[in-house]
Amino acid sequence: MQDHLIDRETLDFLLFDVMEVEKLFARPRFADYSQETIGAVLDTGYAIARDHFAPHNRKADENEPEFIDGEVKLIPEVAEALKHFIEAGFMSATADYDQGGMQLPFTANMAATAVFASANVATRAYPSLAASAANVIAKFGTDAQKAKFLGPMREGRFFGTMVLTEPQAGSSLADLKTSAKPADDGTYRITGNKIFISAGDHNLTENIVHLVLARLEGAPAGIRGISLFIVPKFLVNEDGSLGERNDVALAGLIHKMGYRGTTSTMLNFGENDGAIGYLIGEPHNGLAYMFHMMNEARIGVGTGAVALGYTGYRAARAYAQDRQQGRPLGNKDPASPQSPIIDHPDVRRMLLAQKAYVEGGLALCLFAASLIDECATAENEEARAEAHRLLELLTPITKSWPSQWCLEANSLAIQVHGGYGYTREYPVEQAYRDNRLNPIHEGTHGIQSLDLLGRKVGMDDGRAFDQLRLLIEETLEAAKASESLAGEAHALESTLARLKEVTAHLNQAMKDGEKERVLANASVYLEAFGHTVVAWIWIKTALVAATKLEKASTDEERAFLNGKLRACRYFLRWELPKTGMHFDRLTEMDDTWLSAENDWL
Amino acid sequence: MQDHLIDRETLDFLLFDVMEVEKLFARPRFADYSQETIGAVLDTGYAIARDHFAPHNRKADENEPEFIDGEVKLIPEVAEALKHFIEAGFMSATADYDQGGMQLPFTANMAATAVFASANVATRAYPSLAASAANVIAKFGTDAQKAKFLGPMREGRFFGTMVLTEPQAGSSLADLKTSAKPADDGTYRITGNKIFISAGDHNLTENIVHLVLARLEGAPAGIRGISLFIVPKFLVNEDGSLGERNDVALAGLIHKMGYRGTTSTMLNFGENDGAIGYLIGEPHNGLAYMFHMMNEARIGVGTGAVALGYTGYRAARAYAQDRQQGRPLGNKDPASPQSPIIDHPDVRRMLLAQKAYVEGGLALCLFAASLIDECATAENEEARAEAHRLLELLTPITKSWPSQWCLEANSLAIQVHGGYGYTREYPVEQAYRDNRLNPIHEGTHGIQSLDLLGRKVGMDDGRAFDQLRLLIEETLEAAKASESLAGEAHALESTLARLKEVTAHLNQAMKDGEKERVLANASVYLEAFGHTVVAWIWIKTALVAATKLEKASTDEERAFLNGKLRACRYFLRWELPKTGMHFDRLTEMDDTWLSAENDWL
Repeated sequence: MQDHLIDRETLDFLLFDVMEVEKLFARPRFADYSQETIGAVLDTGYAIARDHFAPHNRKADENEPEFIDGEVKLIPEVAEALKHFIEAGFMSATADYDQGGMQLPFTANMAATAVFASANVATRAYPSLAASAANVIAKFGTDAQKAKFLGPMREGRFFGTMVLTEPQAGSSLADLKTSAKPADDGTYRITGNKIFISAGDHNLTENIVHLVLARLEGAPAGIRGISLFIVPKFLVNEDGSLGERNDVALAGLIHKMGYRGTTSTMLNFGENDGAIGYLIGEPHNGLAYMFHMMNEARIGVGTGAVALGYTGYRAARAYAQDRQQGRPLGNKDPASPQSPIIDHPDVRRMLLAQKAYVEGGLALCLFAASLIDECATAENEEARAEAHRLLELLTPITKSWPSQWCLEANSLAIQVHGGYGYTREYPVEQAYRDNRLNPIHEGTHGIQSLDLLGRKVGMDDGRAFDQLRLLIEETLEAAKASESLAGEAHALESTLARLKEVTAHLNQAMKDGEKERVLANASVYLEAFGHTVVAWIWIKTALVAATKLEKASTDEERAFLNGKLRACRYFLRWELPKTGMHFDRLTEMDDTWLSAENDWL
Repeated sequence: MQDHLIDRETLDFLLFDVMEVEKLFARPRFADYSQETIGAVLDTGYAIARDHFAPHNRKADENEPEFIDGEVKLIPEVAEALKHFIEAGFMSATADYDQGGMQLPFTANMAATAVFASANVATRAYPSLAASAANVIAKFGTDAQKAKFLGPMREGRFFGTMVLTEPQAGSSLADLKTSAKPADDGTYRITGNKIFISAGDHNLTENIVHLVLARLEGAPAGIRGISLFIVPKFLVNEDGSLGERNDVALAGLIHKMGYRGTTSTMLNFGENDGAIGYLIGEPHNGLAYMFHMMNEARIGVGTGAVALGYTGYRAARAYAQDRQQGRPLGNKDPASPQSPIIDHPDVRRMLLAQKAYVEGGLALCLFAASLIDECATAENEEARAEAHRLLELLTPITKSWPSQWCLEANSLAIQVHGGYGYTREYPVEQAYRDNRLNPIHEGTHGIQSLDLLGRKVGMDDGRAFDQLRLLIEETLEAAKASESLAGEAHALESTLARLKEVTAHLNQAMKDGEKERVLANASVYLEAFGHTVVAWIWIKTALVAATKLEKASTDEERAFLNGKLRACRYFLRWELPKTGMHFDRLTEMDDTWLSAENDWL
């Protein structure tokens, strides 16, 4: 079977030519790396993705995790794939050397994540969640907690989860009810019901380390009264051996439209005496710890969405080159051979749109990932603070934009395949089903839009927004001087001016007491903002392509670079103008849905 | 379980107040009907849909048709539902009295179709396909063919299929290879492989009557050499009893993402001596016969898409009213009770968008259906010709627009449900999967767009287009005089002017030899055209609502009518402006994808 992983040439181009990852190698943390060694890491990632992840992608979809004999069982290929993944060091790729990690730049790791996810997003989710949980413990856990849990997690012997959602609360974390009672020995007894816990139970590892949000007795109501606890599936003895089963019970498996290879669970904590839990950090500060990892997790969601869109694009492209059907306009001779459907203009449109979405999305995710490296390793405090502000601003976009547009890419991939695309014989329908999760989890579109417009663009008097604007203006200066990109640059320049104007207008209106009316259209703002950012990312990418094109020596290289320029042109001409209407309505603070009565809807 | 059928009040409003179906009752064919009797037919339809279609919608999705012991077996509920459907007369509702039909107006039948499809689109497909096949035989078959096949089809003892597609040809009907050889007895022997034949095999009826496109020996190449044949699964003796199994073999069942309750098959004709077939009408004229029913079939696809969007909207609305989560902006008191999520502006936005898509789509489909009644029964030749031209023009829109936007509605319905919407415990994910078929079958979006821009808008020197424009202008005159709709009318007026200008420009360019470049953007034209038409349909609907609102006497009635006005406002303010960018690019005859090299894509 042909696999349809993320195009390696594009990935290298984005990492090394556009994002200039090699600048990181001067930093002490990454001193052992070079373009060559990063390339070798990616070589390994591609090989494992191709040989061990992609082959069971469909099988895992068709054989959901099942609860058999008291255990959640997955098809054996998942454990096998993860064995190779862990052995190659991907489990703890970004972790410190002294924790057994590789100190891989976060950007390079996100690139590898994208490759694995393009092969099999559901299998990739298990180590991803585990690494996030491990990172929380590494950052906020006590030495004793690290000794017990972190080591085995970094080694891939224990996996982990993030346990937030409860049935009665959903996105409203203020309404969490799970309780924690102190025991005499300094531990806690956790009681409550949780839902939508990905990887909440499975037979992949010896143990599962749940990070659980719960409320201490007497804690303040709302989000200021939430603490974070380590609650292992099996207790761990002082010598590291496994002890008794903790009081955590699987209440049910959730059956989903897609992403079926990743177990989604309902978990009951404390049906008997209370599950034993260990407090992380200070009481009532649990959300802050959890959200410390949220930027990374949300960029991970965006990257997963990109990967699914990308695999669909690659499948559609291969199909369009291969499938013979119909003839060019004007050739009415039915005796002449049929043409590959890539020759049909509407198929070309759909391929170019997919390319613009998925490669634009990939560049966006890698840029956001590079900000995480900057936050951690930039030369001075100010540069780190600057990177952090920009990351805060761009996280809702990086999570949402690919979730929306790379799903659209998956729909186009089906359409290119025609009737075949709707069958389960071809991979594109699964990618479409899998990707529909991404606009929902780790904060819905609605939540992201409130984060962006209600918090991020106004924070520090709009400082993050100004930083982004300056970055875009810098790119625009260069692009205006480029013969092939001047038109695109002017288009983005006027969109940016409108975004600035609308943002100022809305910030002012919020200060003037119109917060409800402004935020009623937050998701529209998110969309217009996202398209503006991706237009910038595309011009940034195309500038590099244009420069390289001057010196390109082979037809293949020229085609590759012209493809980037053409996708940029598509995005600027066919996508960016969608923002115009959004800005019009935002400026008016349109209240079409806000002022409707409930029973008109 | 709560069902989520099409809202009855809205259906009545559209049929009787907006489309004024009662005007038909003056025509001889419909003399027995009144608003009351149509209402009674719909009452029966709703009852059967609710009691016999909706309850097995999920079960049929989870238990696909299977090939067991030489037979394709469906869950028994399908046959049971269809028994009620047939007994109530829906099988042949629009057929002549002397064929055992009810002579129901096509418009009312399409309304009933929408109701059944909102309950269970897959079960509804079987009689729908059968009725289409029966209509072809009724129109073009010989008396002998009618005697053998039509009677049992009208009674629902035989079902039927439309057998067009072949693996090597797909949408390119010119490349069909299935052959027909004359036998000595005036019948034919059919040989060839067909794919994607919906309802191609099942255990629902005694017999299945395939209408098969095939090529007579020595026929011209291309679409001018295709004939149409009746090929029954079982031969029928002169006395009407069933004879031998014909040489039609099931080569495989196709497994799809959705619409799983409807069998999709690969059929092999003539693996042995050739399947016995009976020529319909003249040789080489088969496509014309098949396409005679195509307008109806395509409106049926649009209606199915609407029905799926509608059921999702109703489910989302019920969920949003019921589900408590979060609090209004400004209420930070976690001790206060949570609000229903319909209070959250972004949920309101998503509900209003769904309403605008599905109710606008329903009105569009009913309007197109009313044109079919006009084609058949309008007072004079000229009125019938006028209706036919308009129908030809609007068919690609009526097929495509709901397929695109009611699928989007299904995505929004999932989003309103959050994580729950992604699970198979709730109905919205199935509707989304089911609806993804509609942009593909009965002519893809791309095919529809070429039909619209390449054929329909230019036909008879643009006469159909002018007719539509005059109709829209008539509505606009009335709307401009209405206080509550003047703003909407002005918005549509300028969009219509642009559509007219762009259409003239493109028609001229095609005459000037730029056909390839113009048609390269046909799908964009289709989209802009569709939004313009639906904006008109919404203003037409809202005008009636505004008039009724003046005399409304209850809060419920006022809410109902205000809902129509608000959905119209949403569509005009948030949807129609999307056309602006499309018109810009169409005017330029942008060649972004056309002029790219294949290896840039």
